[in-house]
Amino acid sequence: MIVLDRIEHLLPEEIEKRSFEIISQELEQKGIVLPQEQEMITKRVIHTSADFDYVKTLCYSKNAVRIAKDLILNGADIVTDTNMARAGINKKMLARFGGEVHCFMADEEVSQTAKERGTTRAAVSMEKASKLTKPVIFAIGNAPTALIQLYEMMQSKAFRPAFVIGVPVGFVNVEVAKELIMEMDVPYIVNRGRKGGSNVAAAICNALLYELGRR
Amino acid sequence: MIVLDRIEHLLPEEIEKRSFEIISQELEQKGIVLPQEQEMITKRVIHTSADFDYVKTLCYSKNAVRIAKDLILNGADIVTDTNMARAGINKKMLARFGGEVHCFMADEEVSQTAKERGTTRAAVSMEKASKLTKPVIFAIGNAPTALIQLYEMMQSKAFRPAFVIGVPVGFVNVEVAKELIMEMDVPYIVNRGRKGGSNVAAAICNALLYELGRR
Repeated sequence: MIVLDRIEHLLPEEIEKRSFEIISQELEQKGIVLPQEQEMITKRVIHTSADFDYVKTLCYSKNAVRIAKDLILNGADIVTDTNMARAGINKKMLARFGGEVHCFMADEEVSQTAKERGTTRAAVSMEKASKLTKPVIFAIGNAPTALIQLYEMMQSKAFRPAFVIGVPVGFVNVEVAKELIMEMDVPYIVNRGRKGGSNVAAAICNALLYELGRR
Repeated sequence: MIVLDRIEHLLPEEIEKRSFEIISQELEQKGIVLPQEQEMITKRVIHTSADFDYVKTLCYSKNAVRIAKDLILNGADIVTDTNMARAGINKKMLARFGGEVHCFMADEEVSQTAKERGTTRAAVSMEKASKLTKPVIFAIGNAPTALIQLYEMMQSKAFRPAFVIGVPVGFVNVEVAKELIMEMDVPYIVNRGRKGGSNVAAAICNALLYELGRR
């Protein structure tokens, strides 16, 4: 074992704690005070991205965090638009509250329907998710078309999601899709602008879960 | 179906193409010309992160892209340090060349050994990966301890990876771990600094695969 003096030697369980200390210090140096309710979520997004821009762009609807936590406590499911986000969410912890994570993107039926209609699998998988009988938190980290589909279902009163985590990343329709969600009467956490991702969607879900786990 | 004039209406297969056009335009506006070999990889990382900072921080060893492509063509496996990165890599396409993606992070044995030694599962899973008989591309998007483990195995001549994609994200030992890899005699793609992630690791692997698929 080569000891390197450039490396900070920490036990595995100390690494995350130290990371959050660094994030807190740097926020303080920048003179940023996060609203208490949002603090652990915004910090975990910074932790997963090393990008302090999220402080400026993460938008929370009124009481968003409390509403999302109550949903999880009451056994809500989570639907993602990528298997990556699904892989990143702490499914064991969600199961403790009675929820599970679904991703319908790889379903043969979804793929077939999308092809027939000339639309995205993400949009069709939202339709499929709207048929779930339990309340659903939508965690969208990739496809703006998923958010647009949710918007259209809300507009036509066909469906109203229990909660929307709207953090797709990208260049085409990403910014407008997020703005559309924030215009609707639905609780949300949205990252304004182009940035986001499956990792960010998973980080937000996990931040909620870890806060609940600490109770 | 509500038609929104704020939305750019594209067929699903056109969305990615349009995204890359926007990325190319904005790079041009910034006066940035990417080296041809690296172009599709750097662009796909921007595509997955909406973050143009990667232009400045992605570092490629000499002939890195050619070496990585040759490895894949010859059936190399990929080892990731998260199941998220594993989920994000196009495994079907890798299988066409004879390779598969491994992630040992959730192995019971890895977890047990890490606990006994007071080290991270990521470090132990690198040791396990070093026992694979095929050449391995390591795609590290999360744990600097995985990179440090690879560095130590190279230093002690116990093992030399065929290729290292070193893009962990974070605040503790992330920057130094990346610098250590770049000091070694190993082909690499590394993102200097704090940024990176499982999504970035997967994007780099997929960019290599898609370039090979277009031949």
